[in-house]
Amino acid sequence: MENFTFQNSTKIIFGRGTEEQVGRETSRFSKKILLHYGTGSIKKTGLYDRVVKSLRKSKVDFIELPDVRSNPRLSLVREGIRICRENNIDFILAVGGGSVIDSAKAIAMGVLYDGDVWDFFTRKAKEEKALPIGVVLTIPAAGSETSTAAVITNEENNLKLYNEGIEELRPKFSILNPELTFSLSSYQTACGATDIIAHVMERYFTQTKDVDITDRLCEATLKTMVKFVPIALAEPKDYVARAEIMWAGTIAHNDLLGTGRGEDWSSHNIEHGLSALNDMAHGAGLAILFPAWMKYVYKANVNRFAQFAVRVWNVEPSFGPQEAAALEGIKKLGTFFRDIGMPGSLKDAEINRSQFDEIADIATFYGPIGNISKLNKKDVIEILNLAV
Amino acid sequence: MENFTFQNSTKIIFGRGTEEQVGRETSRFSKKILLHYGTGSIKKTGLYDRVVKSLRKSKVDFIELPDVRSNPRLSLVREGIRICRENNIDFILAVGGGSVIDSAKAIAMGVLYDGDVWDFFTRKAKEEKALPIGVVLTIPAAGSETSTAAVITNEENNLKLYNEGIEELRPKFSILNPELTFSLSSYQTACGATDIIAHVMERYFTQTKDVDITDRLCEATLKTMVKFVPIALAEPKDYVARAEIMWAGTIAHNDLLGTGRGEDWSSHNIEHGLSALNDMAHGAGLAILFPAWMKYVYKANVNRFAQFAVRVWNVEPSFGPQEAAALEGIKKLGTFFRDIGMPGSLKDAEINRSQFDEIADIATFYGPIGNISKLNKKDVIEILNLAV
Repeated sequence: MENFTFQNSTKIIFGRGTEEQVGRETSRFSKKILLHYGTGSIKKTGLYDRVVKSLRKSKVDFIELPDVRSNPRLSLVREGIRICRENNIDFILAVGGGSVIDSAKAIAMGVLYDGDVWDFFTRKAKEEKALPIGVVLTIPAAGSETSTAAVITNEENNLKLYNEGIEELRPKFSILNPELTFSLSSYQTACGATDIIAHVMERYFTQTKDVDITDRLCEATLKTMVKFVPIALAEPKDYVARAEIMWAGTIAHNDLLGTGRGEDWSSHNIEHGLSALNDMAHGAGLAILFPAWMKYVYKANVNRFAQFAVRVWNVEPSFGPQEAAALEGIKKLGTFFRDIGMPGSLKDAEINRSQFDEIADIATFYGPIGNISKLNKKDVIEILNLAV
Repeated sequence: MENFTFQNSTKIIFGRGTEEQVGRETSRFSKKILLHYGTGSIKKTGLYDRVVKSLRKSKVDFIELPDVRSNPRLSLVREGIRICRENNIDFILAVGGGSVIDSAKAIAMGVLYDGDVWDFFTRKAKEEKALPIGVVLTIPAAGSETSTAAVITNEENNLKLYNEGIEELRPKFSILNPELTFSLSSYQTACGATDIIAHVMERYFTQTKDVDITDRLCEATLKTMVKFVPIALAEPKDYVARAEIMWAGTIAHNDLLGTGRGEDWSSHNIEHGLSALNDMAHGAGLAILFPAWMKYVYKANVNRFAQFAVRVWNVEPSFGPQEAAALEGIKKLGTFFRDIGMPGSLKDAEINRSQFDEIADIATFYGPIGNISKLNKKDVIEILNLAV
């Protein structure tokens, strides 16, 4: 087990009807905020009205900045920064999924920085402070509701990059009402679930020895997902399944499951290349890439892949060589992703080989990636070939 | 699953040599502190010297208040409050186990309160603020290093009570170096382990339905303890085993494992009566009482006890009635406690029936206890009879 520091001070307010607390929670921080959201689904569902009502009840003024899309764009972040500065806004409320939250975080760090906010993503600068933000979550997926990270796409050069992260970027509060996820389509639900599962697996597949407790916490979270995602797909208004998935989504990415161990993140990095060029859903990209990555690297730690197979997928344990069990686990994961409606290959997603070079460049933008195996550009292209 | 709020902002600094960071972390809050510790073991091990050196390096002045004993006493808390007030101290550093931390918390809430600090424990008053505290943990057991609660014994009337808890009472930081636990005796190790296991079980045994993810996180933590406690007892300097236990001890009691569910603190409440009257180790009392409580209540939710048996103790699942599996799990828990050196009965601990009435009064001081089954004074006496 490695030394670590762990802190996550986001206040989680979880359960039915909890969005009605948003005004009270927000008013502890500010009376004039930026209300940041997406392309209008919160208006259709009535969530927008309930949030606005709660803000008004607590006498919180707001200026609106809608139109965040999946793979949130740098241009909208810059607009948000300008609005906050011109109106002396000192708090950002994100109502939506990971894209809205990430966009809010980027605005929050940009407002207090003299240079260009993109510097934090190219690592030209390290963020030191940020405006406080709050969240009403509508899609369990990115885990951005308690994380320090944001992923932003620069439309000018198709780069999709993430910041280093500081504690100040964790939302002050995140309101999680599973009922708000009843209206998600099967495809959105499955993409979110895939992202959650991937967040756990990026931490689970490590070369760090002797972190049994975090192994078991990871397995607990994965087993919860494996059980409840099919239930939520069959019955979108099943509160229990939606609640289990939503809470798992936060636990998957609040840093607890990475304590004491090296993490990998190769599949995420490669996927950022894929979705930067194709504007595809992050979860769909991960469903294609994760099994391919596994096939490429499992020999570097076959025992760990066998443990994953046995403990998460109920594969019969082997009392001899572990390779067959390891491969069986990878196969079961791939089958699960296809069963919940995710694409099974790059071909399914209509991605062709002409992009591989550029995807690999984006994936290795900060240098070689991975923990189970160190991967350079050539390795990434091999993995993409396995995903065809 | 029930609605819940979850927040735990304690910064955990975990691993080898981390006590050397105590000066730097403390100096972020104060330059004049109360250094609170026990009866001298930290001087024998050299920890005291390292802490003092680190404080001096960061130019933090300190006044010392040693002599906290297990089942920390109200009189010493009052002395600490007086010292803090007379010297304008605004931060308390607890170096020790749960007793030292609890004593520090009680001082922290008492300094800022006009009345008698005992009011918070009799629930005559509700704490609203507290001085910040920091922790260097030496015994994984109480989980007080990230919790809001303190348990204090009033020597004048033998009452052992706990406060309600507010976020401000969570330590600002807790330094956890597993090496500091190498010197714990087998008995201390086992008592601490029993307390940790009990903290998980008090949350696990609930009547709240549909909290699968927290069930599985609880089971993950329990399985870690079951695996590593015997290793630490056989080889006290096994870093991995000590680290797994220490991190499990925090996770067991940082509130995560209780999210979304009613909790049952019956065994803890009864044990407080037992140890208030006998000054016995809390863990030893729990090892005696928990299996007795289980035998008394398991019929109120036999399926949950069977799940515990199968998932934690690898009991063969039953495909018919669940009672035999449930009872087998209780038996295995009792055997485990005895195997790690805990007393198996009140007789082993030389406690006789003459105390039962008074123990039951303390246990039900705030009213009936429990979630799996509501217990009044008469029930508590029945459980004590089962523990003889």
